[in-house]
Amino acid sequence: MLVMMKSNATREEIAAVCRKIESMGFKPHPIPGSTRTAIGITGNRAPVEPFALEALPGVGECVPVSKPYKLVGRELKEDTTVIDLGDGITIGGGRLAVIAGPCAVESRQQAREAAAPIAAAGARLFRGGAFKPRTSPYSFQGLALEGLKILAEVREEFGLKIVTEAVDVESVDLVERYADIIQVGARNMQNFSLLKRVGRARIPVLLKRGNAATLDELLMAAEYILSEGNYRVILCERGIRTFADHTRNTLDLSVVPAVQHASHLPIIVDPSHGTGRREKVIPMSRAAVAVGADGLIIEVHPHPEQAMSDGNQSLDPVEFGQLMSEIGQIAPVLGRSMA
Amino acid sequence: MLVMMKSNATREEIAAVCRKIESMGFKPHPIPGSTRTAIGITGNRAPVEPFALEALPGVGECVPVSKPYKLVGRELKEDTTVIDLGDGITIGGGRLAVIAGPCAVESRQQAREAAAPIAAAGARLFRGGAFKPRTSPYSFQGLALEGLKILAEVREEFGLKIVTEAVDVESVDLVERYADIIQVGARNMQNFSLLKRVGRARIPVLLKRGNAATLDELLMAAEYILSEGNYRVILCERGIRTFADHTRNTLDLSVVPAVQHASHLPIIVDPSHGTGRREKVIPMSRAAVAVGADGLIIEVHPHPEQAMSDGNQSLDPVEFGQLMSEIGQIAPVLGRSMA
Amino acid sequence: MLVMMKSNATREEIAAVCRKIESMGFKPHPIPGSTRTAIGITGNRAPVEPFALEALPGVGECVPVSKPYKLVGRELKEDTTVIDLGDGITIGGGRLAVIAGPCAVESRQQAREAAAPIAAAGARLFRGGAFKPRTSPYSFQGLALEGLKILAEVREEFGLKIVTEAVDVESVDLVERYADIIQVGARNMQNFSLLKRVGRARIPVLLKRGNAATLDELLMAAEYILSEGNYRVILCERGIRTFADHTRNTLDLSVVPAVQHASHLPIIVDPSHGTGRREKVIPMSRAAVAVGADGLIIEVHPHPEQAMSDGNQSLDPVEFGQLMSEIGQIAPVLGRSMA
Amino acid sequence: MLVMMKSNATREEIAAVCRKIESMGFKPHPIPGSTRTAIGITGNRAPVEPFALEALPGVGECVPVSKPYKLVGRELKEDTTVIDLGDGITIGGGRLAVIAGPCAVESRQQAREAAAPIAAAGARLFRGGAFKPRTSPYSFQGLALEGLKILAEVREEFGLKIVTEAVDVESVDLVERYADIIQVGARNMQNFSLLKRVGRARIPVLLKRGNAATLDELLMAAEYILSEGNYRVILCERGIRTFADHTRNTLDLSVVPAVQHASHLPIIVDPSHGTGRREKVIPMSRAAVAVGADGLIIEVHPHPEQAMSDGNQSLDPVEFGQLMSEIGQIAPVLGRSMA
Repeated sequence: MLVMMKSNATREEIAAVCRKIESMGFKPHPIPGSTRTAIGITGNRAPVEPFALEALPGVGECVPVSKPYKLVGRELKEDTTVIDLGDGITIGGGRLAVIAGPCAVESRQQAREAAAPIAAAGARLFRGGAFKPRTSPYSFQGLALEGLKILAEVREEFGLKIVTEAVDVESVDLVERYADIIQVGARNMQNFSLLKRVGRARIPVLLKRGNAATLDELLMAAEYILSEGNYRVILCERGIRTFADHTRNTLDLSVVPAVQHASHLPIIVDPSHGTGRREKVIPMSRAAVAVGADGLIIEVHPHPEQAMSDGNQSLDPVEFGQLMSEIGQIAPVLGRSMA
Repeated sequence: MLVMMKSNATREEIAAVCRKIESMGFKPHPIPGSTRTAIGITGNRAPVEPFALEALPGVGECVPVSKPYKLVGRELKEDTTVIDLGDGITIGGGRLAVIAGPCAVESRQQAREAAAPIAAAGARLFRGGAFKPRTSPYSFQGLALEGLKILAEVREEFGLKIVTEAVDVESVDLVERYADIIQVGARNMQNFSLLKRVGRARIPVLLKRGNAATLDELLMAAEYILSEGNYRVILCERGIRTFADHTRNTLDLSVVPAVQHASHLPIIVDPSHGTGRREKVIPMSRAAVAVGADGLIIEVHPHPEQAMSDGNQSLDPVEFGQLMSEIGQIAPVLGRSMA
Repeated sequence: MLVMMKSNATREEIAAVCRKIESMGFKPHPIPGSTRTAIGITGNRAPVEPFALEALPGVGECVPVSKPYKLVGRELKEDTTVIDLGDGITIGGGRLAVIAGPCAVESRQQAREAAAPIAAAGARLFRGGAFKPRTSPYSFQGLALEGLKILAEVREEFGLKIVTEAVDVESVDLVERYADIIQVGARNMQNFSLLKRVGRARIPVLLKRGNAATLDELLMAAEYILSEGNYRVILCERGIRTFADHTRNTLDLSVVPAVQHASHLPIIVDPSHGTGRREKVIPMSRAAVAVGADGLIIEVHPHPEQAMSDGNQSLDPVEFGQLMSEIGQIAPVLGRSMA
Repeated sequence: MLVMMKSNATREEIAAVCRKIESMGFKPHPIPGSTRTAIGITGNRAPVEPFALEALPGVGECVPVSKPYKLVGRELKEDTTVIDLGDGITIGGGRLAVIAGPCAVESRQQAREAAAPIAAAGARLFRGGAFKPRTSPYSFQGLALEGLKILAEVREEFGLKIVTEAVDVESVDLVERYADIIQVGARNMQNFSLLKRVGRARIPVLLKRGNAATLDELLMAAEYILSEGNYRVILCERGIRTFADHTRNTLDLSVVPAVQHASHLPIIVDPSHGTGRREKVIPMSRAAVAVGADGLIIEVHPHPEQAMSDGNQSLDPVEFGQLMSEIGQIAPVLGRSMA
């Protein structure tokens, strides 16, 4: 913590702040600057709460100097985390992970029709929602347990690993039993009860960035999961909310190198939700691979125009094949191979 | 739904779109415009999904024309909802409701020290968190059941109604037993499992706007609660996330008349979270009352500089008294009295 | 400037940074912290450029500690600036200044029809655009010199002071001759050539905040004007761009106390552009006065439904009279009188 | 224009709106919908101003249906514009254009030291500011005419085309004489006097997107230039302002395919200003090429740590060589070659 005094702070005011810091059990370090004095604080083990100091006469503002996360930080663990799902399927590291499938599992037939071309195109992970968080209470909310059973069948038939969302503590119990990765959606990024529960799950967690979350908040949400003991967390950029109106969200690809600088956790990109527009999914997928993402999560539907949700951002199987071909040409530039 | 054709769309393309609309069981209404043709759609009962049409040649974009909410809308119920909490305490209507108290219940003594001057200043509702959603897993998370019991004691001793947050389905069971109003926090505005649960609660719900939620999303979140049968919902503006850095959030007071135009539900304002800065709470409280809010929710702590959370945005009892005095002078301009 | 070392920075890296600072002619002050070391820099007269230091091994980031503005700051001049326009009309201080008039001067008759009820309602300043910056090159761009002459006639006939916009260096020459206050619009807030020119004008300047400008950027834009010698600057909040879609902009009233804390310059509020919706202008005007603004600038048109621009955010004379009456009741709560 | 009636609008109200539309000289087309009636308007040549209608009883809102731009639209001109600068150097089309150079021209030596490795790495266009718009009046503002002369020498010596910014009408006169492309900066995107002047320039214009500009506003700013007769405009994405704090701006790469869909003008990307962080320039450059941008504009300084401005976002010559190599491997995936 650093206390910035006002430029017209008096000697007495500076001395009073130092005495206050000492009375809190810490050590003050005054540093006179060109226009004002700063006072450093040492001897604290946890972050110092600023308001006791901000209220004193002559104090301008308090500036925190330590990062709030620990377990997710690269300072603690330098090597990038590689999550091994078995059968040679990994997320993080040298192989690009592609997760594809429909927004929602609608029926056994729809799921199988989606899975076949996805597997054929070389993807190894399948997504599909059984529990759907929807803005309107009147929209389709997913097949729940029946959807999970269909996903488990897809795994058997096509050899794909399953990624599906849990929306509350109850659904985690079910997802944990049927899937390979639990997804926590953007709207639940700060649903701390859910984060704690998936932190005790026995399978990895795909944590999506909230649409107004800063990098620090995303990492702190992951910290909740790691702090409960589950170190296998994959982060996911899926667009942030801005004034721009040509896409549903603004996909913030610069967060990929920022996460990789700050954390050892892998990060993937969701250009389907990140743009909300089918015709922008392939260009933004190429960009995501080029920026260095560890993978992609893509909505693919056998018949997008009939989809019960998110049809306008879903690729059809032919487009998905084109996507796989294009990113397969870019991945080697970054020293990456397709799974 | 309105289909906007491109300006260079051909007669054949327009006819093809009309045939497609008919094949979906609806009726097309082509309207030639100055630069392009629009095609209206009637005969639908639910919103028409746009993507089947957007994919056709010559189609520019599809524009929805119906509002997605029903029960919360003023079109359905013209009269403003007044929520009666008993003992002559109401929210909505002619009396301004002031909810005040500490961010978190820290101890019996702290709660009583906060409640005494709050009641003396004329407020009738007390807030205090027993379950605290915190960005960091290492921060104070609230006293849970013990906190609720302290709140119930405050109600008995000071005659104040109790508002406190539930963070998951489990905590609703407890809050419902001890409090008068269940608060759903901004981070949980789209935690649909929680919304459904409080929609079956027997007490009113205070629903805070998410920090990146549009007006429609806020109303749809309320619609979740009403659609489960609980019509006693109070909305709350508490600041949105913008690029501006002189406050923690940007308090969007214009949402107050916008809500009052669209919905019959009461709306209050939280200038404590909405600014994050103690010295801006009183000015923004005056503004909130002046714009026409149905009430305020204010963080008050007996000793802000010792608060375990949000100390830098909490008023002390003297400041709170000043706030009550100033808003008491503004309320009559809007034909409102203090409770 | 403060250099924050990484938590795993070595003793040697810290020493190297200190040597580098010395080689730049400054004095380093290392402060060991709970998780990492900070190094303060003194002896500099201007801000230290950070990148020479950020590139060194072990350095996390550099944090500036001095405010960039000087002349606009309250630290330099404690007393609030009051701008005297003659005839007992002032901006800043105890009297609320209300500037009203049409978006654009359209004709002599329209200007007179607007001015008569404005003067009758008690406002003392008249606004009207002669040079109109429009998003489209095909929209009405103003009457230019003819518009200025009409404004000068309005001043004579109704005793109102004139506020009108200049859009480039050329138009400043004309505006300076005919008006009492030169307005610099939001889109030109960082048009530095224009700022320098109005900094040499002989009349005061009304500087509108850009729709994505931070508080510091607004103050720095004002600093450009003061640094050229014109100390009579009025700041104006007119809404910022956010994701919210229920208003054209989000009016950020919290910037009013923030400006008043940081600067001695007066600040007024424009609820017409700040909301873009006629029915929200009166509520937000009440709120602006209640938060403590030094005045308002309001679009009033004799026949809003016939206005050539901004008709949907203009009040008619009856509504303006209501506005004056309502704010006249709120102003005394803040110790202010109507002009 | 489409008038959306409220769901409870009466038959009489609908009829009154239709009569009003007829009285304006247009033709109304009522379309009954599932929950409310829409009324289309035809017969207008320019956009219909909505407020005369919005004020009528029963009217919910008015929705514009025509795009406001004409000359920049792909509907008018299907083929992508290719700007030929001579000597086989083009922007738009099959060759990727790379513009590189220092933020500001600081001296003849600095410019030559930057240009030599830039030319050697294969770039054909050189950037460097002679007129610098700076947030602070106390910061370095550029060498002006002397800087332009240095740039002209660089052109002769290294065969590079010159891109440099004009900040007002006066500086356009000079830039036009010495440079090959006039840059209009982000802060001046809606400086309409400047846009009109460069619309009459004899050389092409590089127009940067404002940091809070929508796609439509960017295209309308370009429309100003084309409407004056200069059809050679290059658009540039350089980051928008959001709440995200891990970069200086949020680079919105999705605007690239959006521009390419709506307009025939070429679009390039500026990852230096778009991130503000040196270590993110190469990853985001790869992403920009992969998304399909027609080129890049990159800050390169011979000694970034000594730069007088933007040193923390400038690459050194070695990093620039790496960038050229990496994008050279991605360009062919999109069917593009390096110039």
